[in-house]
Amino acid sequence: MGLAFDARGLEAYMAEIFPQVADDFGIDQLSEDGITMRLKVADRHLRPGGTVSGPSMFALADVTVYALVLSRLGRKALAVTTNCSLDFMRKPEAGKAIIAKGQLLKLGRSLAVGDVHMFTEGSDKLVARSTMTYAIPPER
Amino acid sequence: MGLAFDARGLEAYMAEIFPQVADDFGIDQLSEDGITMRLKVADRHLRPGGTVSGPSMFALADVTVYALVLSRLGRKALAVTTNCSLDFMRKPEAGKAIIAKGQLLKLGRSLAVGDVHMFTEGSDKLVARSTMTYAIPPER
Amino acid sequence: MGLAFDARGLEAYMAEIFPQVADDFGIDQLSEDGITMRLKVADRHLRPGGTVSGPSMFALADVTVYALVLSRLGRKALAVTTNCSLDFMRKPEAGKAIIAKGQLLKLGRSLAVGDVHMFTEGSDKLVARSTMTYAIPPER
Amino acid sequence: MGLAFDARGLEAYMAEIFPQVADDFGIDQLSEDGITMRLKVADRHLRPGGTVSGPSMFALADVTVYALVLSRLGRKALAVTTNCSLDFMRKPEAGKAIIAKGQLLKLGRSLAVGDVHMFTEGSDKLVARSTMTYAIPPER
Repeated sequence: MGLAFDARGLEAYMAEIFPQVADDFGIDQLSEDGITMRLKVADRHLRPGGTVSGPSMFALADVTVYALVLSRLGRKALAVTTNCSLDFMRKPEAGKAIIAKGQLLKLGRSLAVGDVHMFTEGSDKLVARSTMTYAIPPER
Repeated sequence: MGLAFDARGLEAYMAEIFPQVADDFGIDQLSEDGITMRLKVADRHLRPGGTVSGPSMFALADVTVYALVLSRLGRKALAVTTNCSLDFMRKPEAGKAIIAKGQLLKLGRSLAVGDVHMFTEGSDKLVARSTMTYAIPPER
Repeated sequence: MGLAFDARGLEAYMAEIFPQVADDFGIDQLSEDGITMRLKVADRHLRPGGTVSGPSMFALADVTVYALVLSRLGRKALAVTTNCSLDFMRKPEAGKAIIAKGQLLKLGRSLAVGDVHMFTEGSDKLVARSTMTYAIPPER
Repeated sequence: MGLAFDARGLEAYMAEIFPQVADDFGIDQLSEDGITMRLKVADRHLRPGGTVSGPSMFALADVTVYALVLSRLGRKALAVTTNCSLDFMRKPEAGKAIIAKGQLLKLGRSLAVGDVHMFTEGSDKLVARSTMTYAIPPER
């Protein structure tokens, strides 16, 4: 299945349906092999000590897999997160963006599964990984 | 192992170390059997449609298990989330608080595991469940 | 939704569709509130040292949630595991049965989610916990 | 950290400490980048219909990450599984081996995390994925 959007088109569409997303996340790259997303780290994403918070990492992983689903299914896509596993491996570096590399592992009729690896920008050491499952409601 | 804090004492201590937490979360009840926490839902926790967002549910589960760990280990506790599983079962009702009931499943020397069930306030239907693992660094 | 089987009826049905299951697992109790299953521990379930192996605990959790789904949906039910999270908390005691207490957290049209707590028989200390998601294919 | 074993040495060591493992699993390849393991599918790994069972896939993922940990820490390594997430994406093909490709995501002082992708031999379609966390007890 080909892509329904290019990176800019998907970013514009996501800003339209989730206005708050546009401030927090950007798409660096999108192809049939996967997506690279960026958490534009601001004060509201930090916890004491200046590192990115767990909920912000969850949000990044979640939006990355959602973007992968939209990139395939296009504008009519409805999908809700049903399951998440998340492993935190290393403390992210303070004051830097978090980069998420996402891949769609499965795109079935009713379930999509995506895998996300997250890094501090400029580092190749994994900060966290996540797998997200989205349920795709039947078309009516 | 007994409790190092009562509900009000733990709430005050968490507000001291995580000032932003005090606005978002409150402790309804704390005993040796578990904890009941509340997400004080505000606009920043919502997604389009008015229901509580995934990251806010993650944050609630995370803080609930963290509170359980602190309630046992007291002020000197350091602990970082290493793993999370999260299942979303039902859409939360719009405009209501989310209530989390948490239980410590294990409190070992280096790992603590807690389980959280989340409900819309006033309902007994499960909105989401989560298990969180915290690593407890060795005392120096 | 009521129960489609009682404990003996469900055990008999499972033995019919999964003959190998009958040797390994038994149903101690079944009600609308949940199920209690038993792993009849034999040499093939053990790892060096005499404790029950991880794969045997996985199998117990999986069959417990499958039994919960069958207990509601009855003989025509088809369901496949799509996701599992599993936390190992304590070493099971050698030479004893493992008891699993399972609860259905959700039974939707296309997904069922169940939670399982596992104990060494006669102990109330949690050995492991698991959440399993089953996909229920649309009826044709 | 370099490798403590090559593929044949690790296979021999694992056969020594887990004799039953030698019948079920083989190491196809081992390098600093990861490991490729094989489940030598036999009748005892199958479920009705002839496809590989969930517990056998769990066992393959578990042994793959254990092998990765041993490959780094060597003979004196002790490690126990503490957490597992497992997603089943597609039915494996009947009558073929399952190939697992594993990578160590983290090797810390007290926790190791590995990621495993599983395929039917000869196919590049993902059958299942798993992340396993092992706790490494402190040296005495």
